[in-house]
Amino acid sequence: MLAELEIVPIGTTTTSLSAHLAEVARLVADSGLTYRVGPMGTTVEGDWDAVMRLAKACHEAARQASGRVLTTIRIDDRIDQSGPRLAAKVASLERAAGRPLQR
Amino acid sequence: MLAELEIVPIGTTTTSLSAHLAEVARLVADSGLTYRVGPMGTTVEGDWDAVMRLAKACHEAARQASGRVLTTIRIDDRIDQSGPRLAAKVASLERAAGRPLQR
Amino acid sequence: MLAELEIVPIGTTTTSLSAHLAEVARLVADSGLTYRVGPMGTTVEGDWDAVMRLAKACHEAARQASGRVLTTIRIDDRIDQSGPRLAAKVASLERAAGRPLQR
Amino acid sequence: MLAELEIVPIGTTTTSLSAHLAEVARLVADSGLTYRVGPMGTTVEGDWDAVMRLAKACHEAARQASGRVLTTIRIDDRIDQSGPRLAAKVASLERAAGRPLQR
Repeated sequence: MLAELEIVPIGTTTTSLSAHLAEVARLVADSGLTYRVGPMGTTVEGDWDAVMRLAKACHEAARQASGRVLTTIRIDDRIDQSGPRLAAKVASLERAAGRPLQR
Repeated sequence: MLAELEIVPIGTTTTSLSAHLAEVARLVADSGLTYRVGPMGTTVEGDWDAVMRLAKACHEAARQASGRVLTTIRIDDRIDQSGPRLAAKVASLERAAGRPLQR
Repeated sequence: MLAELEIVPIGTTTTSLSAHLAEVARLVADSGLTYRVGPMGTTVEGDWDAVMRLAKACHEAARQASGRVLTTIRIDDRIDQSGPRLAAKVASLERAAGRPLQR
Repeated sequence: MLAELEIVPIGTTTTSLSAHLAEVARLVADSGLTYRVGPMGTTVEGDWDAVMRLAKACHEAARQASGRVLTTIRIDDRIDQSGPRLAAKVASLERAAGRPLQR
């Protein structure tokens, strides 16, 4: 399944969040899961338990640095596709649209 | 501001949604806004009115093809940055993490 | 259509957000739209333009008080139901579940 | 922590989802966690493992009935409040707004 993680620390005093999310980014990069960092969240591919182990580690790392964290996990789970979907999903939309799309 | 659009038609009979979202993808590509298609949604950059004009057109196109549509618009609006943020946001996280990240 | 608004000010120095969202709550209550405040967001009922006018006013009020705001708008738009859905949706789930649910 | 669960089966042939979500509603009601059903999702209160056990059971029940499921889990986790927050959060917003709000 695909799962997008969005982690938002609250009460950070600064509007920039990247310093607060650096450890989260390293946890994702070291997880061994296929992932893609986007402008509004990071999408990972794996089964439920692997994804949720990573989500918990990321959430707890953010919570250590901040008294309140809003974490959103958006899952897209499709039984009729067995292969990797992270890149395939955008390619499929591109084929349907009949033109190249910016990624 | 950045805004991610996720449009989900309900009651499509098929689990694949790309055919239902082809027209939406073309509307985004033709909007003139900077955009990036990701595995869980498409992020566009523009001011509130430009973004919402596009969001309404996309939502209505999906609603023509389907009796029910769930649309999620996630906005990240930051006053203290004037330049384009679509690519800059991931680059900033990469610098904070101290390593390259898959995009 | 139904639309849930979730507004998150960033860089607030405090973990409590209610003082930052008081003006947003008053805008919703004064909008004339049917609404319901829940623990994770406020759902309003109205057509696209009325809902988005309110969403813009709420977002801008939060932005005046904070240099960065994350706003999420989740829309559920269903053509085959003309009457009000805000209360009807939970009642329909309750009937399907065959038991009363806490609201 | 608070966690909102939103579960959306794809490819259902009908625009009504309540029959598909009846089993999910029963799982939540039987979980022993404090919960509140709202128009756009159900919010539960518990620690990470209890919440995610329930989220997995709900997601899997929906997946048995449908070839594709989109599940969104939105977490609000705040270290500086130990008591129950499900009702307290809306009451706190109401106090800040200085008026009663529809719930």
